[in-house]
Amino acid sequence: MEFLAAALVIGLGAIGAGVGNGMIVSKTVEGIARQPEARGQLQATMFIGVGIVEVVPIIGVVLGFLIYFA
Amino acid sequence: MEFLAAALVIGLGAIGAGVGNGMIVSKTVEGIARQPEARGQLQATMFIGVGIVEVVPIIGVVLGFLIYFA
Amino acid sequence: MEFLAAALVIGLGAIGAGVGNGMIVSKTVEGIARQPEARGQLQATMFIGVGIVEVVPIIGVVLGFLIYFA
Amino acid sequence: MEFLAAALVIGLGAIGAGVGNGMIVSKTVEGIARQPEARGQLQATMFIGVGIVEVVPIIGVVLGFLIYFA
Amino acid sequence: MEFLAAALVIGLGAIGAGVGNGMIVSKTVEGIARQPEARGQLQATMFIGVGIVEVVPIIGVVLGFLIYFA
Amino acid sequence: MEFLAAALVIGLGAIGAGVGNGMIVSKTVEGIARQPEARGQLQATMFIGVGIVEVVPIIGVVLGFLIYFA
Amino acid sequence: MEFLAAALVIGLGAIGAGVGNGMIVSKTVEGIARQPEARGQLQATMFIGVGIVEVVPIIGVVLGFLIYFA
Amino acid sequence: MEFLAAALVIGLGAIGAGVGNGMIVSKTVEGIARQPEARGQLQATMFIGVGIVEVVPIIGVVLGFLIYFA
Amino acid sequence: MEFLAAALVIGLGAIGAGVGNGMIVSKTVEGIARQPEARGQLQATMFIGVGIVEVVPIIGVVLGFLIYFA
Amino acid sequence: MEFLAAALVIGLGAIGAGVGNGMIVSKTVEGIARQPEARGQLQATMFIGVGIVEVVPIIGVVLGFLIYFA
Amino acid sequence: MEFLAAALVIGLGAIGAGVGNGMIVSKTVEGIARQPEARGQLQATMFIGVGIVEVVPIIGVVLGFLIYFA
Amino acid sequence: MEFLAAALVIGLGAIGAGVGNGMIVSKTVEGIARQPEARGQLQATMFIGVGIVEVVPIIGVVLGFLIYFA
Amino acid sequence: MEFLAAALVIGLGAIGAGVGNGMIVSKTVEGIARQPEARGQLQATMFIGVGIVEVVPIIGVVLGFLIYFA
Amino acid sequence: MEFLAAALVIGLGAIGAGVGNGMIVSKTVEGIARQPEARGQLQATMFIGVGIVEVVPIIGVVLGFLIYFA
Repeated sequence: MEFLAAALVIGLGAIGAGVGNGMIVSKTVEGIARQPEARGQLQATMFIGVGIVEVVPIIGVVLGFLIYFA
Repeated sequence: MEFLAAALVIGLGAIGAGVGNGMIVSKTVEGIARQPEARGQLQATMFIGVGIVEVVPIIGVVLGFLIYFA
Repeated sequence: MEFLAAALVIGLGAIGAGVGNGMIVSKTVEGIARQPEARGQLQATMFIGVGIVEVVPIIGVVLGFLIYFA
Repeated sequence: MEFLAAALVIGLGAIGAGVGNGMIVSKTVEGIARQPEARGQLQATMFIGVGIVEVVPIIGVVLGFLIYFA
Repeated sequence: MEFLAAALVIGLGAIGAGVGNGMIVSKTVEGIARQPEARGQLQATMFIGVGIVEVVPIIGVVLGFLIYFA
Repeated sequence: MEFLAAALVIGLGAIGAGVGNGMIVSKTVEGIARQPEARGQLQATMFIGVGIVEVVPIIGVVLGFLIYFA
Repeated sequence: MEFLAAALVIGLGAIGAGVGNGMIVSKTVEGIARQPEARGQLQATMFIGVGIVEVVPIIGVVLGFLIYFA
Repeated sequence: MEFLAAALVIGLGAIGAGVGNGMIVSKTVEGIARQPEARGQLQATMFIGVGIVEVVPIIGVVLGFLIYFA
Repeated sequence: MEFLAAALVIGLGAIGAGVGNGMIVSKTVEGIARQPEARGQLQATMFIGVGIVEVVPIIGVVLGFLIYFA
Repeated sequence: MEFLAAALVIGLGAIGAGVGNGMIVSKTVEGIARQPEARGQLQATMFIGVGIVEVVPIIGVVLGFLIYFA
Repeated sequence: MEFLAAALVIGLGAIGAGVGNGMIVSKTVEGIARQPEARGQLQATMFIGVGIVEVVPIIGVVLGFLIYFA
Repeated sequence: MEFLAAALVIGLGAIGAGVGNGMIVSKTVEGIARQPEARGQLQATMFIGVGIVEVVPIIGVVLGFLIYFA
Repeated sequence: MEFLAAALVIGLGAIGAGVGNGMIVSKTVEGIARQPEARGQLQATMFIGVGIVEVVPIIGVVLGFLIYFA
Repeated sequence: MEFLAAALVIGLGAIGAGVGNGMIVSKTVEGIARQPEARGQLQATMFIGVGIVEVVPIIGVVLGFLIYFA
């Protein structure tokens, strides 16, 4: 049961992070293709966004390894 | 059963935070690509939004670790 | 079973709050990008909205901790 | 089983309230961004709407605490 | 099993009421933003609609409390 | 098992009635916002529609109470 | 098990009738808002349609009560 | 188990018939609103369509009653 | 178990036939509303299509009755 | 278990054939409504398509009867 | 359990082949309706595509009969 | 359990290959209908794409037969 | 249980790889149809993309065979 | 149970990585097809994005092998 819990938290976190970051980065790429001169501002906003999105999945990764080594 | 509960609360929180922040940040990037001069206002609103969205998942993270160390 | 209930109420609340706030804040950012001069009114409406959306998930958080410490 | 029931009623209520209020407030913000002079009427309608949407989830919250303290 | 039934009827009712009222009120807000002079007629229709939508969830709330106190 | 059946029939009926009436009333509000002079005809059609939609959920409510008091 | 079957047939019938009638009546209301002079023909077609849609759910209601009183 | 089977076949048939007929009749109403003079041809096609759609659910209804009285 | 199998095959067949025929007939009605003079050709194609779609559900109906009388 | 397997293979095949043929035939009808003079070519392509789509469900039907008579 | 496995592999293969071939053939029909002179090239591409799509379901059919006769 | 595993891996692979190849080939057909002179380049890209998509399902087929003959 | 795990990891990997590669290659084909002279750059980007998408499913394939031969 | 956990974490990770990278790379290809001169910037952003998306699935892969060899 422990391994299943560790697998579940990282698996769900991967889906959440994939969908969230996919939306953010794809819109950033679309924005750069429209206005290449605004690349710096768009990438800065993108980094902030993916950083925020990754918070909870990364904590889930930590918890997963804690459960694994428990 | 405890580990499964901790994994579930963080996994569902990661999905919720990923979808919510993904919508907010992608729209912000789209808005900056249209009007680069409004970057400050858009980012300020974005930070408020992602802060609000992260409240419940972060509490879920806290609960997850409480369940883990219980 | 208690921990699973606490995890479920906060996890579902995180999804509900994420989707609801994501819709509200993303539309607000889109609105500010169109009309930057209406920023005050839009943000005021946004704060009211996210406050209302957060009511039930926050109560769920409270219930979750009540179940946890019970 | 009692705690699971309390968690379920508040969790489902949070999803229902999040989706419903998210649609209403996001449309209100969009409407104010189009016609800022109609802010009063739109917010009044919004308050009525979110009040109506919150009725059943709030009752569910009450029932959840009744189940919890039963 | 009784508490689970009471939680289920109110939780599903909250989702139904949230989706239904969300569609009605958001369209009303959109309609007022287009034609502010038709506010009275739109709100009257809205009240009739949300009243009709709330009928079954409110009865579900009554049944939920009947099950709870049974 | 009886209470669960009563909860299920009213809960599913609430979702069906919410979705069906939500589509009808929201289109009616949209129609009135376009042509306010056709309000009478639209509301008459709306009342017929919501009456027809409510038939099966109301019967489900009756069955739910029959199961409850059985 | 009998009550659950009766609840299931009426609950699923309510969802089917709600979705089907919701599509028909909402399109009728939209059609009347475009061409008010064609109201008679549209309503006649609508009545035929909702009558056909209601056939199977009504039979399901009859079966539900047969199961209930069996 | 018999009653559950009878309920399932009629419930699924109601959903199938509701979705299928809803698509057909709503398109017919939309077509009549565009070209009122083609009402006869559209209704004739509609009756053929709903007749074909209803074949399998009606047979399911027959089977449901056969299972019920078996 | 036999009755459940018979109910399942006809119920799933009803959904498949409803969705498939609904798409075909609704497009046919839409096509007749655009070009009433092509009614014959469209209906002929429609009859071929619904005949092909109905093949597998009708065989499912036959199997359902075979299972029932077995 | 045998009857359930036979019902499952034909039921899933009916859904697959219904969705696949529904897409093909509805596009064919739409194409004929646009260019009635290309009817022969479109119908020939349609017959090839529905023949290919029906291969696997028909084999499923054969397997279903093999399981039934086994 | 063997029959259920054989039914599952052919049923899922029928859904996959139906959806995949439905998309390919419907686009081909749409393309021929636009440019009837490119019929040869489009049909050649279509035959390659449906051949590739059918590979895995046909192998699933073979496996299904192997399981059946095992 | 072995047969069920073999059926599951080929069935899921059929769905994945069907959806993936369906998207690729349908877009290729659409592209050839627009620019028939680019047929060679589009088909070359298409063959690379369907080859890549088929890798994992084909390996799944191999595994399925390994499980079957194990 | 081992065979089921091996089947699950390759089956889910096939769905993920199919959807991901399907989106990438179909957009590449669409892009080449618009600008045939940019074929080299688009295909290079496509190969990078499908290589990245295939990483995790291929590792899943390796794990599947490890589980199989374990 | 261990093998099932290892399979689940890599399978869910493959779906998350497939969807996320599929969105990013397909938008990048679309952007290069519009503005071939911005290829360098778009690919750089793409590499950052897919690197971020792959973080959690790769960790899941590591965990999967840890569970496998445990």
